Amino acid sequence: MTNEPPSKSREKTKALLLELQEKICHGLEKIDGKAKFQEESWNRPEGGGGKSRVLKNGSIFEQAGVNFSEVHGKELPNSIISQRPEAKGHEWFATGTSMVLHPSNPFIPTVHLNYRYFEAGPVWWFGGGADLTPYYPYLTDARHFHQAHMEACDKVDNNLHKVFKPWCDEYFYLKHRKESRGVGGIFYDYQDGTGPLYRGNNKDGEAFQKSKEIGDNPLSWNQLFSLAENCGDAFLPSYEPIINKRVSKNYSAIEREFQLYRRGRYVEFNLVWDRGTIFGLQTNGRTESILMSLPPLARWEYGYIAKENSREALLTEVFTKSQNWINDNELEQFCKTNNVFD
Amino acid sequence: MTNEPPSKSREKTKALLLELQEKICHGLEKIDGKAKFQEESWNRPEGGGGKSRVLKNGSIFEQAGVNFSEVHGKELPNSIISQRPEAKGHEWFATGTSMVLHPSNPFIPTVHLNYRYFEAGPVWWFGGGADLTPYYPYLTDARHFHQAHMEACDKVDNNLHKVFKPWCDEYFYLKHRKESRGVGGIFYDYQDGTGPLYRGNNKDGEAFQKSKEIGDNPLSWNQLFSLAENCGDAFLPSYEPIINKRVSKNYSAIEREFQLYRRGRYVEFNLVWDRGTIFGLQTNGRTESILMSLPPLARWEYGYIAKENSREALLTEVFTKSQNWINDNELEQFCKTNNVFD
Repeated sequence: MTNEPPSKSREKTKALLLELQEKICHGLEKIDGKAKFQEESWNRPEGGGGKSRVLKNGSIFEQAGVNFSEVHGKELPNSIISQRPEAKGHEWFATGTSMVLHPSNPFIPTVHLNYRYFEAGPVWWFGGGADLTPYYPYLTDARHFHQAHMEACDKVDNNLHKVFKPWCDEYFYLKHRKESRGVGGIFYDYQDGTGPLYRGNNKDGEAFQKSKEIGDNPLSWNQLFSLAENCGDAFLPSYEPIINKRVSKNYSAIEREFQLYRRGRYVEFNLVWDRGTIFGLQTNGRTESILMSLPPLARWEYGYIAKENSREALLTEVFTKSQNWINDNELEQFCKTNNVFD
Repeated sequence: MTNEPPSKSREKTKALLLELQEKICHGLEKIDGKAKFQEESWNRPEGGGGKSRVLKNGSIFEQAGVNFSEVHGKELPNSIISQRPEAKGHEWFATGTSMVLHPSNPFIPTVHLNYRYFEAGPVWWFGGGADLTPYYPYLTDARHFHQAHMEACDKVDNNLHKVFKPWCDEYFYLKHRKESRGVGGIFYDYQDGTGPLYRGNNKDGEAFQKSKEIGDNPLSWNQLFSLAENCGDAFLPSYEPIINKRVSKNYSAIEREFQLYRRGRYVEFNLVWDRGTIFGLQTNGRTESILMSLPPLARWEYGYIAKENSREALLTEVFTKSQNWINDNELEQFCKTNNVFD
């Protein structure tokens, strides 16, 4: 197989993702200004371990959880082997950084990031992405987040964003609610140095179509490493300006209630649909670290319907649908008319 | 096949379960004294429909959701066909009543009930049960709930409780937390007029062992109908005295916080492990009715550990484990010593 990873591939990715955790935590503490991360190191009985960092009750963040892990084992579970049959019978290695940030202020969106790397016998692959979940709609926030991630992708190859953006919409979708989790961002998986880019199961989806148009155009190990690096580095610049724009906006009890209600959807996505969460919980992962993604407080209300034309209704009707956030003039006009542009 | 249901089997079970919803809702309104149930009737595009009733912000119940449904379709999904291959290719009928009651006062437990009946071609089966989830430990509450359900089972056959009680512990188990959802109750499924009683997958479990000891001792259609009737009728008497005992006990903010934290576990069980919920969400069920089981407010806290010897610690260490609640003298002595008996 000519498609071998470079020497010290495990050390390199581990160092990259550990440094990413470090840089982002440092940045988040500066942004928050009040609370600090508490770290717990843990070992996995089957091999490897991780560092879980949590910041609680900050001035901005009600909770911010940032995990790093580097784990290995004798054989991957069947759910992954079925996607990667070449890995069967081989020991495996995985390293990743993931985080979910839950701000207190309902005008600041929740955000998620995850970058990960696997090796198992003759195969290796990268996966990752970041996505934004606003509680109140602002087109400029969605646009800024997408723009920053598109630019990070473009540095590696300007074909990537047109596949990874719709793949994100496809992945972070609550089928039982017919809603996206939020405004999306980028998502990719099983990038193993062979084509095609899209490796999901939805052959009717936009991500599959775009990937087919591009044709087999695989990224090399080094390109995928740079992609994780660029996108990881784009994370704080993609999010911090949104915080700064919204943080001093006062909110009412009603707006807080709506945020808690929408956080219920975040719980539903993570526990019902998120492959990583379900896989972790069902295979003896470290529960407290896996569920650090859940909000500190969430609400359910039977039969809730937002008032017509309210911002709460626009959130659900427009901002939990797949949209071209960056350059759709009609959407821009609509958002301006409805006072959810800026 | 000699094992046919009686004539009008569908009408009879539907009437039983509809009446059960009616009786329990009536009883709950009397108990609550303040709030009333609001009803929504709905139709299922593929066939059938239901009645969802919700009581919100009562004097006792923060939320009480009571569902009835009667649905039918052309072919059962594969997840059921794999358990009931005889049903393949046949139209099916299912009717059920289910409820989850979330009281405001942390000293009153959350409770769940579900009784259901299926027909599909040559096969029919009953399933159901009820289980109690306290937030603060009282042995007498667990004991009363179990006693009432044991007596209801015994009226039909005094072999049942020794299988259905451990089956409940086995079913309402959060593997990722190594905890039961609460103190349990009874649970049974796939009771189709043939033996054995236990139809789960855990051949190491107590329910399987007890069922094996008893031998093939199937209940007839009429016995299973009576079982649902008796257990359904035992529900309010199993729960109301617990409410009455705890309702006037004042609670602190800390106790409320602990209740919200433990409600998070309820969400985790229902979304990660509950077959009915996952099946419903993944197969186009009525989401709002399915998720009526979720608490109105829930909390997550990374790394929470209860103070040693506190009631919060006893809840997790003793009251989320499988126990012989009815007549274990050692447990009784332990609870008395630790002031969590009565």
